[in-house]
Amino acid sequence: MNYCTQCGAKVVLRVPEGDSRQRHVCPRCGEIHYLNPKLVIGCIAEWEDRLLLCRRAIEPCYGLWTLPAGFMENGESTAQAALRETGEEACARVAVEQLFALVSIPRINQVHLFYRAKLLDAVFGVGEESLETALLDEHRIPWGQLAFPSVIFCLQAYFSDRRRGAFGFHESTLPPP
Amino acid sequence: MNYCTQCGAKVVLRVPEGDSRQRHVCPRCGEIHYLNPKLVIGCIAEWEDRLLLCRRAIEPCYGLWTLPAGFMENGESTAQAALRETGEEACARVAVEQLFALVSIPRINQVHLFYRAKLLDAVFGVGEESLETALLDEHRIPWGQLAFPSVIFCLQAYFSDRRRGAFGFHESTLPPP
Repeated sequence: MNYCTQCGAKVVLRVPEGDSRQRHVCPRCGEIHYLNPKLVIGCIAEWEDRLLLCRRAIEPCYGLWTLPAGFMENGESTAQAALRETGEEACARVAVEQLFALVSIPRINQVHLFYRAKLLDAVFGVGEESLETALLDEHRIPWGQLAFPSVIFCLQAYFSDRRRGAFGFHESTLPPP
Repeated sequence: MNYCTQCGAKVVLRVPEGDSRQRHVCPRCGEIHYLNPKLVIGCIAEWEDRLLLCRRAIEPCYGLWTLPAGFMENGESTAQAALRETGEEACARVAVEQLFALVSIPRINQVHLFYRAKLLDAVFGVGEESLETALLDEHRIPWGQLAFPSVIFCLQAYFSDRRRGAFGFHESTLPPP
C-alpha cells in the first residue's frame, strides 16, 4: 500500500496512538488503513458417494485440482459464498449443510472455510475458472495433484469422518505452528 | 474508496473483464481493488460457571456489554486472534477450546467467530478499550445492555447448550434472511 484510498496522499507506516502495531496512516487526512485476513469459502459437494472437484484454469496452481472455493464477497453470508462459488466454478447447485473445516493460513493472511453440501442433482459443468470438473470417488481423488494444503486437510478429514460414520468440525492452522 | 493504493490515481467503478461485479479499478495502473468482509473474533471465556464480559469504552456501543472480541489481524490464526483480543480487552489469559459460533452479518460485511475458552486463572483486568470487566453468572448477564446481536445470539446458544449438557457449533446470519 502506497497511497491513501481517501485523499490520495502518500501513506506512512507508523503505530497509531492507542495501537500496538504499525499501520499505513495518511499524514494528510489521518485515515488509518487496516489490512485484515480474507476469507476463502468453498464446498465439499456430495453426490451419492462422490465429491465434486475442479481443475483450475487460473493461477495459482493452474492445472491442479481443488474443491470449488473462492474469496467471500461483501454483502453475502459465508454459506451464500460457498453456494455462489460452487455455482461459478462448477455450474452446480447445492444445498449447504454443516460447516466442516476452518483452516487458518497466517503466512498468506487467509482463513479457509469449507462446508459440506449436497448437489441438488447430478448436473454440473465447467465454470470460467475451471479446465474441467468431475464427480470423483475416494479412490479417484488425485492426491498428488491437489492445489492447496487446505484442500488436502479438508479431504483427508472428510474421508476419515466418513469411514467412522460421523462428520465433525475440523480446525487447523497451516503450516502447523 | 477514491484513490488507487498502488499509484495514487483516482479509481473508477466498473466490472473488470471476466468478473460479474463492479470493482474499484485504477485506470492508470490497472490495479483492481477488491473489498472483502472482515473477521471479528472473540471468546466465551469460562471460569467455573461464570463468563468474562467487558463493558465497552469505545464506539460503537460505548457503555454496553460484550464478549472480548475484535478484528482479526494479518499474520495470526483465528484462535490466536481470540486469545489476543481476550488479553487486550480483559487482561485475561485463556486456553482456546472449540469454535462455538459463526455469525455472518452481510449488512456490515463482517463475519463474527466465537470460541469457547477457559480462563487459566481468575486473574483479569480492564483493557484500554473497556470501562470494566466482570465474571458473570447466567442470571447476572445484562441482556438488555448487550452491545451486539451476534453476542446475544452467542450467549443464548451457550446457555441453552449448557443446560442440555453438550456444546455444539452454531451458525447464524444476521439479520435473519
